[in-house]
Amino acid sequence: MSSQFEPRDPDFKKRVSQSFAEQAVMSTIGAHLAEVNPGRVVVELPYRADLTQQDGFIHAGISSTIMDSACGYAAFSLMPAEARVLTIEFKINLLAPASGEVFRAVGQVRKPGRSVFVAESELFASAAGSDKLVATMHGTLMAVYPE
Amino acid sequence: MSSQFEPRDPDFKKRVSQSFAEQAVMSTIGAHLAEVNPGRVVVELPYRADLTQQDGFIHAGISSTIMDSACGYAAFSLMPAEARVLTIEFKINLLAPASGEVFRAVGQVRKPGRSVFVAESELFASAAGSDKLVATMHGTLMAVYPE
Amino acid sequence: MSSQFEPRDPDFKKRVSQSFAEQAVMSTIGAHLAEVNPGRVVVELPYRADLTQQDGFIHAGISSTIMDSACGYAAFSLMPAEARVLTIEFKINLLAPASGEVFRAVGQVRKPGRSVFVAESELFASAAGSDKLVATMHGTLMAVYPE
Amino acid sequence: MSSQFEPRDPDFKKRVSQSFAEQAVMSTIGAHLAEVNPGRVVVELPYRADLTQQDGFIHAGISSTIMDSACGYAAFSLMPAEARVLTIEFKINLLAPASGEVFRAVGQVRKPGRSVFVAESELFASAAGSDKLVATMHGTLMAVYPE
Repeated sequence: MSSQFEPRDPDFKKRVSQSFAEQAVMSTIGAHLAEVNPGRVVVELPYRADLTQQDGFIHAGISSTIMDSACGYAAFSLMPAEARVLTIEFKINLLAPASGEVFRAVGQVRKPGRSVFVAESELFASAAGSDKLVATMHGTLMAVYPE
Repeated sequence: MSSQFEPRDPDFKKRVSQSFAEQAVMSTIGAHLAEVNPGRVVVELPYRADLTQQDGFIHAGISSTIMDSACGYAAFSLMPAEARVLTIEFKINLLAPASGEVFRAVGQVRKPGRSVFVAESELFASAAGSDKLVATMHGTLMAVYPE
Repeated sequence: MSSQFEPRDPDFKKRVSQSFAEQAVMSTIGAHLAEVNPGRVVVELPYRADLTQQDGFIHAGISSTIMDSACGYAAFSLMPAEARVLTIEFKINLLAPASGEVFRAVGQVRKPGRSVFVAESELFASAAGSDKLVATMHGTLMAVYPE
Repeated sequence: MSSQFEPRDPDFKKRVSQSFAEQAVMSTIGAHLAEVNPGRVVVELPYRADLTQQDGFIHAGISSTIMDSACGYAAFSLMPAEARVLTIEFKINLLAPASGEVFRAVGQVRKPGRSVFVAESELFASAAGSDKLVATMHGTLMAVYPE
């Protein structure tokens, strides 16, 4: 996929991968970074029974975990090398039960800025080779610069 | 604390506890049900290094996990015995880094209905005996009745 | 534009137009219905100086007014003839100042249901023939049926 | 009411009033500033039939208009004299139909910052001397400083 965004740090892929590796929660839940492009990041999570809510679906908070990281790293991929990324807020709409074999959070920057970024994430559940949109996230991220 | 809400199922505490126990993700992350009152539920999570993001704070998705369950069970506590609860959407504002020893999500129903409930959750981080508000959630829940 | 949705009421265009005409606020602010398709509705508002905030841009609440109606009627277009539509909640992200000659709110259903609809709206500002995305809305609507 | 916040500009009341007076939309819809305290601002709107949606209730976008200004000026009241205020995003939950004689948006800062403010607004509808909560807003505002 070609991107509409120009990264400000040519080493953005490495920077995103390193930061993702430092999110201890990702290995705890079994999520990994599947794609990193300028302004677009995909995080994948295979189904695990120990991440579910009372009906056996992936808990909305776990869906939020990978969708927030997909949004955050999509924004981070466009930031200059010295910036840190911070989520200010997000909203999630749950469209369908999160059932499936693999969950794929596709995060994309909607509007980059110097300090404020707007990004969104779609969560797809795959089962038997077909994809279903199960949730959307819309959030605001901030670039924090050293004093 | 006295409540402004009248539960429709006198066994609401038992029903909430049983459903919470079926959320496998709660034991995975180490969260427990701390209080159940009509329209008000508290979920607690002790800090764990394996639930953090890149700066060592609890990941916003994990905060969402306990805040969503606090909202959901606050709503569920007011529903009739035959209803199931479903989160439709929520929004979270992150006010401060989620650092501390224990995290306490206080969920409260703002507006009950037959099918639609509006609830909110505040997340407090405790350390050295003092509490700090670190996040707020505002969400919509639905009561689903058997056909 | 061809639509992915099948309307349940063949007279949906008439029903949407009549209901829109009953929204007194629309003529007060000078907004009109520009397009009605199954699951997709466009509302337009020419710039007016008496609808602005302190910097001379269209007030975010006025932007919300046309975006909410675009979402609401996109959902309403897919509802059966006897249903009424109700907004439960929405979130708006303001991406750029609402300056321009004409504002165009494009509402689209993301997920239809029997009672719950998820819809989104994008607000474009046109000036000198070019379009700029200035805001996004994501909301939940409800179909209310007669008892 | 005593406030928990210390204003950084002693002339905040004058600054808020002047900026509010520059929001042309406020006189168009008939809204006025009812209270200005540090971090807390109240905007009032008497009912008008020409601001309604199809069922005769105040349109959600008009409710948003006064709730957004209440949030925005609550934040603005705590900002230094040289700052401008900008809404980044907000979410609104509609709890009950906006019917009544007077609508009162009570905006309060939840978390002040140097650049990012989190604020919330509650909308009360008054009729025959009693108040009803009809909507809540939760938003993020930004202080913009001269270069």
